[in-house]
Amino acid sequence: MNAPLKLPPIGVFDSGVGGLTVLRALRAALPAEDFIYLGDTARLPYGTKSAESVIRYSLQCAAVLAARGIRCLVVACNTASASSLGALRRQYPSLPVIGVIEPGAAAAVATSSTQHIAVIATEGTIHGGAYEAAIRRLNGSARVVSCACSLFVALAEEGWTSGPIAEGIARRYLEPIFCADDGPDTLVLGCTHFPVLRASICAALPPGVKLVDSAVTTAAAVLRQLHAAAQAPSIEATRDSNHRGSIAWLATDGAARFAHVGSIFLGETLSAEQIEIVDL
Amino acid sequence: MNAPLKLPPIGVFDSGVGGLTVLRALRAALPAEDFIYLGDTARLPYGTKSAESVIRYSLQCAAVLAARGIRCLVVACNTASASSLGALRRQYPSLPVIGVIEPGAAAAVATSSTQHIAVIATEGTIHGGAYEAAIRRLNGSARVVSCACSLFVALAEEGWTSGPIAEGIARRYLEPIFCADDGPDTLVLGCTHFPVLRASICAALPPGVKLVDSAVTTAAAVLRQLHAAAQAPSIEATRDSNHRGSIAWLATDGAARFAHVGSIFLGETLSAEQIEIVDL
Repeated sequence: MNAPLKLPPIGVFDSGVGGLTVLRALRAALPAEDFIYLGDTARLPYGTKSAESVIRYSLQCAAVLAARGIRCLVVACNTASASSLGALRRQYPSLPVIGVIEPGAAAAVATSSTQHIAVIATEGTIHGGAYEAAIRRLNGSARVVSCACSLFVALAEEGWTSGPIAEGIARRYLEPIFCADDGPDTLVLGCTHFPVLRASICAALPPGVKLVDSAVTTAAAVLRQLHAAAQAPSIEATRDSNHRGSIAWLATDGAARFAHVGSIFLGETLSAEQIEIVDL
Repeated sequence: MNAPLKLPPIGVFDSGVGGLTVLRALRAALPAEDFIYLGDTARLPYGTKSAESVIRYSLQCAAVLAARGIRCLVVACNTASASSLGALRRQYPSLPVIGVIEPGAAAAVATSSTQHIAVIATEGTIHGGAYEAAIRRLNGSARVVSCACSLFVALAEEGWTSGPIAEGIARRYLEPIFCADDGPDTLVLGCTHFPVLRASICAALPPGVKLVDSAVTTAAAVLRQLHAAAQAPSIEATRDSNHRGSIAWLATDGAARFAHVGSIFLGETLSAEQIEIVDL
């Protein structure tokens, strides 16, 4: 009996733990796949760094993952997705490189009936305008409103994902955007931290507003990419299999904090012993 | 007529804008003095970095300030104060170097009747235990309870310093510490961001709890140091003078954000044009 063909893992990196919401969505979409996740926790946050620095960091993260053998690279960080995809694709021309912004933008344009779309993200992502630009590339006449929801990151990392404080903060950010009768009909969660606040965000939205979770849409883009390259079993075959893929964990600093906060984002318990510290 | 003797400025550095609460307190205590403030905004936050990195960053910040001629160095950053004072004093043996932790600890021990003291700070400061150690050096039998109030930093930077959200967050952090009858009688604000939240923090405290603002206590320590070295006019002379000292602004990245958020912390309007970007 032949052992099933073992494909190389999918590499995922982020500046920290936020990308774990993308990994969680990837695991849900591709449960039999092996993953390597690298959190560049020593240098987070990327959002306050210059584009040149973020490109350099992204190339360093990719080099660590590429050296371990990956067949697809997921940039699970909005800041790095906005600045570094071109440099990564030039450096690794035969490696599929998928960021979080374009899948989210495409899903928003596909979801919205009115093409009036709201994007919430960190200050860095909003100021960079990457979602707005990606949406406008798909539909030049789309109306996009953007709002930096800086407190959501700290709220998610604190684990205060529901209850009156989370809902109060969500209302304070979102009500001004959605209070008008002709407000947006679609909201893009443009930060990998935000999916863990989904319930509180939904509680602050008028009925009928659709949510685009860029972690979920990125996982769907990876699945399409792997199928296009005939590198993934069909979803049905994957679901029939009992094989659960492995995850190798890498971080550049602070295994204990990575494990503690990461568990909130991953929705599974991570322990510090599982995390290998690498130097970039 | 002789021009008054012009003394070199006082150098102040922090990882970002939080240290501006210390500068604000210094300006209130020493209005005629000139200051140079350096915010290492390219590499903030220091709290998540290793001690070795923070010491290296602190020495780099100090070198920039020393090269411009300063007569006193204020480390307006808790993380750097906890790790770097020794290295800074060895590097600049003739320069007085004052951190934020020891003045806060001394004020807490002097203020508390019961020697049951609460310290709130960032996760990094609390885990490092520097305030607790500094208080125990002054009174080995003091009881110290510590709590990381991570959301306070984002709240302060967002400018949501009062109102129900700020008060709700303050209550969630502080009520468990102060709910017992024999709770602490003194609370140390062990993060330079926290003084801007003073009113919301006070609203969450039982009556009679005394607040120690480490920005104010650090400014008092600098004033004592300058008087001891006979480098400051008497407070009365300073108050009589109409001369208002200057501030030179340096940052390592993001002049616009530094100016915007910095204005909240400084309590004066800062403009991006005033800020010189330096590379470390």
